[in-house]
Amino acid sequence: MILIDGKAVSAQIKQEIAAEVEQIVAAGGKRPHLAAILVGHDGGSETYVSNKVKACEACGFKSSLIRYEADVTEAELLAKVEELNQDADVDGFIVQLPLPKHISEQKVIEAIDYRKDVDGFHPINVGRLAIGLPCYVSATPNGIIELLRRYNIETAGKKCVVLGRSNIVGKPMATLMMQKATPGDATVTVCHSHSRDLKKECQEADIIIAAIGKPNFVTADMVKEGAVVIDVGTTRVPDATKKSGFRLNGDVKFDEVAPKCSFITPVPGGVGPMTIVSLMKNTLLAGKKAIYQ
Amino acid sequence: MILIDGKAVSAQIKQEIAAEVEQIVAAGGKRPHLAAILVGHDGGSETYVSNKVKACEACGFKSSLIRYEADVTEAELLAKVEELNQDADVDGFIVQLPLPKHISEQKVIEAIDYRKDVDGFHPINVGRLAIGLPCYVSATPNGIIELLRRYNIETAGKKCVVLGRSNIVGKPMATLMMQKATPGDATVTVCHSHSRDLKKECQEADIIIAAIGKPNFVTADMVKEGAVVIDVGTTRVPDATKKSGFRLNGDVKFDEVAPKCSFITPVPGGVGPMTIVSLMKNTLLAGKKAIYQ
Repeated sequence: MILIDGKAVSAQIKQEIAAEVEQIVAAGGKRPHLAAILVGHDGGSETYVSNKVKACEACGFKSSLIRYEADVTEAELLAKVEELNQDADVDGFIVQLPLPKHISEQKVIEAIDYRKDVDGFHPINVGRLAIGLPCYVSATPNGIIELLRRYNIETAGKKCVVLGRSNIVGKPMATLMMQKATPGDATVTVCHSHSRDLKKECQEADIIIAAIGKPNFVTADMVKEGAVVIDVGTTRVPDATKKSGFRLNGDVKFDEVAPKCSFITPVPGGVGPMTIVSLMKNTLLAGKKAIYQ
Repeated sequence: MILIDGKAVSAQIKQEIAAEVEQIVAAGGKRPHLAAILVGHDGGSETYVSNKVKACEACGFKSSLIRYEADVTEAELLAKVEELNQDADVDGFIVQLPLPKHISEQKVIEAIDYRKDVDGFHPINVGRLAIGLPCYVSATPNGIIELLRRYNIETAGKKCVVLGRSNIVGKPMATLMMQKATPGDATVTVCHSHSRDLKKECQEADIIIAAIGKPNFVTADMVKEGAVVIDVGTTRVPDATKKSGFRLNGDVKFDEVAPKCSFITPVPGGVGPMTIVSLMKNTLLAGKKAIYQ
């Protein structure tokens, strides 16, 4: 069993990005600039955004954090989005989700100029991904593809089961795994809350990508000997032994599943760090105007 | 075994559309107007476009056909697309594919105003479909969903195998079958040329949607007793007994597969007529500005 070390891979990629940024700057180019809008004080969002700011530093990016209290109006937020769209110094930006209930997340996402949409959530980027055109790929699926690539995990012709059909993980993940590419070319099955034969599908899978948000959902009896298991789950579970009072729990019952796997990602330290580094990769692409002018 | 009669269903839908159009016109509204651009004299394209013009008549739409010889330049074609984008009388339009090799199909598709893209090929419509937002859905997948709906075929929790991963059938079909909707909520597997266990996946499927473009590819041994089989294939096969010199052949070996099925579509007369009627439905939506302003 090989433990996929997302922390090490992401550190490596951040170094690669930082080296490229220094080359760009040395050649007189512009330092990539990522802006993030954070609304309110949700604990998870605070952590994600602070990790993104730290990752920007590690990559040599300029970063800006724009904060609003939870009572910001939709109109104020949309005005800021428009300001960032117009700001030539900002190469890419994100609006950290979730947003307070009085603000339409979809409206905000669609207001972002798709050329600066480094989260890859705008319909144009989602559509271009589905069609197979260059675009900003949603961070978590992109990070998983990068792990499969760096660990030379064969995917062509393999049966890949994706658990979950969310817009930001399950669906784009399925699209990437079935596309004509390496990694890719897999036979992809998407299972979700309505699936009757979810267990059987998993038992037959060469690769399981669990993004269903249920702690310890994937158990040993669901996994074939030698399977590759990628765990996207990051549910906060109360844990008195931790300073924070909680721990992150994956969708996979790691202790019993790991011994059966050829490769498996831990939680934390697997997919999580790759998600942030994928955002950094998109920001570098944005800074270089590599996808859109 | 129930034979799914796409011809009858499409005739019914055309009547429904025509009735609605007459109501709109009687109330002082605008008659929907579909324009089509046809380049060259490809036999299949000539037939499709002429069928589309006929369907427009049946629905009470205004239709325009703009023809170019195969040596039209990309710039000329793009100029016409822009003209149609600006023409307030044209509610929706299509550029019949395939185009001659010297013209970029993707460039032409992206030049179409997504609000008039009734083929649903523009990245914005593809992306909105993936996200689950209102959009113009690609005609063939939309027609299949309509058949499943009108025949009350249960899809929730069922195993649906889609053969083929094309941008216009396989991928959007998979998206629709897995979405939270009725029809939908299926466990969806997409198989393609690289799939190793394609046969086994089919044998376990409650619903098979064959869009692989290989005549008679799906044989009786691949189909479970009681399965629903939807045949998207329309390969032209030489046939001396036909006036045209060819017949349309589906992806399914109909004679041996049909007896095992609960429902099956014939070729011709199954999915084909539904594809055109889906384009009519999108044109009606465009005329009513039901999706975009």
